[in-house]
Amino acid sequence: MVRLVFPEAREWRYIIEGLAAIVEEASFVAAPEGLKLRALDPGRVAMVDLFMPPTVFEEYRVEAETKIGVSFDDLVDVMKRAKSGDRLVIEVSGNRLTITLAGKAERKFRLPLLDIAGQELPTPRLNFTAAAKMLSDTFRDALKDAELVAESVRFKAEDETLLMIARSDKGEVETRFSLSEGSLMEIDVKEPAEATYGIDFLDKIVSKAYRVSDIVTLRFATNMPLELTFDVAGGGTLKYLLAPRVE
Amino acid sequence: MVRLVFPEAREWRYIIEGLAAIVEEASFVAAPEGLKLRALDPGRVAMVDLFMPPTVFEEYRVEAETKIGVSFDDLVDVMKRAKSGDRLVIEVSGNRLTITLAGKAERKFRLPLLDIAGQELPTPRLNFTAAAKMLSDTFRDALKDAELVAESVRFKAEDETLLMIARSDKGEVETRFSLSEGSLMEIDVKEPAEATYGIDFLDKIVSKAYRVSDIVTLRFATNMPLELTFDVAGGGTLKYLLAPRVE
Amino acid sequence: MVRLVFPEAREWRYIIEGLAAIVEEASFVAAPEGLKLRALDPGRVAMVDLFMPPTVFEEYRVEAETKIGVSFDDLVDVMKRAKSGDRLVIEVSGNRLTITLAGKAERKFRLPLLDIAGQELPTPRLNFTAAAKMLSDTFRDALKDAELVAESVRFKAEDETLLMIARSDKGEVETRFSLSEGSLMEIDVKEPAEATYGIDFLDKIVSKAYRVSDIVTLRFATNMPLELTFDVAGGGTLKYLLAPRVE
Repeated sequence: MVRLVFPEAREWRYIIEGLAAIVEEASFVAAPEGLKLRALDPGRVAMVDLFMPPTVFEEYRVEAETKIGVSFDDLVDVMKRAKSGDRLVIEVSGNRLTITLAGKAERKFRLPLLDIAGQELPTPRLNFTAAAKMLSDTFRDALKDAELVAESVRFKAEDETLLMIARSDKGEVETRFSLSEGSLMEIDVKEPAEATYGIDFLDKIVSKAYRVSDIVTLRFATNMPLELTFDVAGGGTLKYLLAPRVE
Repeated sequence: MVRLVFPEAREWRYIIEGLAAIVEEASFVAAPEGLKLRALDPGRVAMVDLFMPPTVFEEYRVEAETKIGVSFDDLVDVMKRAKSGDRLVIEVSGNRLTITLAGKAERKFRLPLLDIAGQELPTPRLNFTAAAKMLSDTFRDALKDAELVAESVRFKAEDETLLMIARSDKGEVETRFSLSEGSLMEIDVKEPAEATYGIDFLDKIVSKAYRVSDIVTLRFATNMPLELTFDVAGGGTLKYLLAPRVE
Repeated sequence: MVRLVFPEAREWRYIIEGLAAIVEEASFVAAPEGLKLRALDPGRVAMVDLFMPPTVFEEYRVEAETKIGVSFDDLVDVMKRAKSGDRLVIEVSGNRLTITLAGKAERKFRLPLLDIAGQELPTPRLNFTAAAKMLSDTFRDALKDAELVAESVRFKAEDETLLMIARSDKGEVETRFSLSEGSLMEIDVKEPAEATYGIDFLDKIVSKAYRVSDIVTLRFATNMPLELTFDVAGGGTLKYLLAPRVE
């Protein structure tokens, strides 16, 4: 039996939409140490990794480790019905997931649990040589700019600047982030790094996850995956890992 | 000759949109005792009944009972042009309806009157055993919730609670309204009542009529029609009657 | 070499959208006396005429008269990326136009210059007998009203009123602008004037240009073109000339 209570259903809506950005069906794992979900997108280009410790919940009751298999389309539909101020109760019993949104009226949504095959994904070990922290909104804008001319964007980190460059026949878009001009909050370049990533995935992720956190941390290395981390208010992390494009 | 003046054109826009939710063409009747419209939707599943007494108008001049046949598509288009603060003047003379929206500039819309066949509908006599009053917005939300999983929704009134239950293969949505939790303003159950109604009509009606009044009164009885009443500010009523679905 | 700096990129966005309302490709001319663009729409029904003197720019460096040929579709896409508070830098060097939007992050958009054929258009000499000044918003609303029933609208100026009349089988819409009721700011009728113009062009122009200026000046004469003037804040003018429709 699982029973999780979260004071603000809206925040969960944004987390669920952040997960739905890349996965269609996946299983949460409710374990004594927290609620987890790690999954790949169907094309295996991106991975999402959510961890929510018991402390972020108002009530966290997990008697035994439980898999909660869901369709993210359905879950997003339900979570979109959350109104500001609604409390969220997530319950699993038998083969059924019950989501209660309690505001003025109490609304119970009952969904069948899905049985989703697939083994657990290992924690990736990666050596990132560059890291930068900025407002999620600033990053989101830069992606929309780049999208005007191209489908992929090259990231270059060097000293105290991060460059994003998109280029095609249509033209070229170059965005420069720096500590000095205030577009970066932190930057740490152990070794200059350069890699290219698809804008479609970046945009899908960031256009949802920016609502989970105002701040995003980027980590990457030359021709290696890009990690995007969004911290959930009150504890918890929503992380994405995106494979580079080989040019 | 008919001349009606109403101080806030916007309110009329919402009333007209409320009528247009179920009727395509119909005749208003301007009579000395007030302006009336009673009409069925083309499929004869729902009836709408508007009554606006002379007192809600700034000026109400009706020399003889006059039929005003209109296409609601056209009327909605005109009323959507009303800006906040515009006065509304409705005039009928000869075979022409003139709607004047007077704000900064004075705009006159002249439409041909339609000759709409059909006898007058009698006032339905129904014995409702349950009645509940709530915010229109709360009701509207509950319909949108139910829509996620089903096309019809079962209403159950018992003691001091009203339940709305929608169910299909996709899952189940249950909304509980009660006096104690503040989601109902009044409830009066003479006899427990249970009936099912189509969500499409409920949604069409409520998504427009909630702007006419913040409050809606529901009345129904087991396997009988559902009556929804929206009071117009300053007097006047917009009522709907919706046939039950037999399961 | 051309380098123009403008403090508020958003204002340029509106000007560019105002030009794009009727032209697809055209050349700006950067000359010592200012930045100019005069072009016809592809169907040669409307002309647009922009003039921005050096004084409206923060920096205006034009070494020799330079043609800047652009696709307005592309330019609108870039300018839509401007955020409130962004500075705008326009640079031409070699065969490339560089647009820099500098806010938190600095974004450079580089577009190839287009080589656009066509001789310079002469300044039209017209004798307007009627002129009226009003809020662009009021004019825009009147066009939307007229659009409900017709594709063209007749303008009539007489004494101190301007009438706009649209008429079809669907009905009739008449808007009366006057000094006395406050819908006109100025009117000057040397000789009564009457002419008909297509609503599609008027609407395309005004729905964009109303953001360039709160105020529009209309000038016309019987069966002659209509001139619409929008003054750009700080100097500069965006003018349109629209051919009349013969009834």
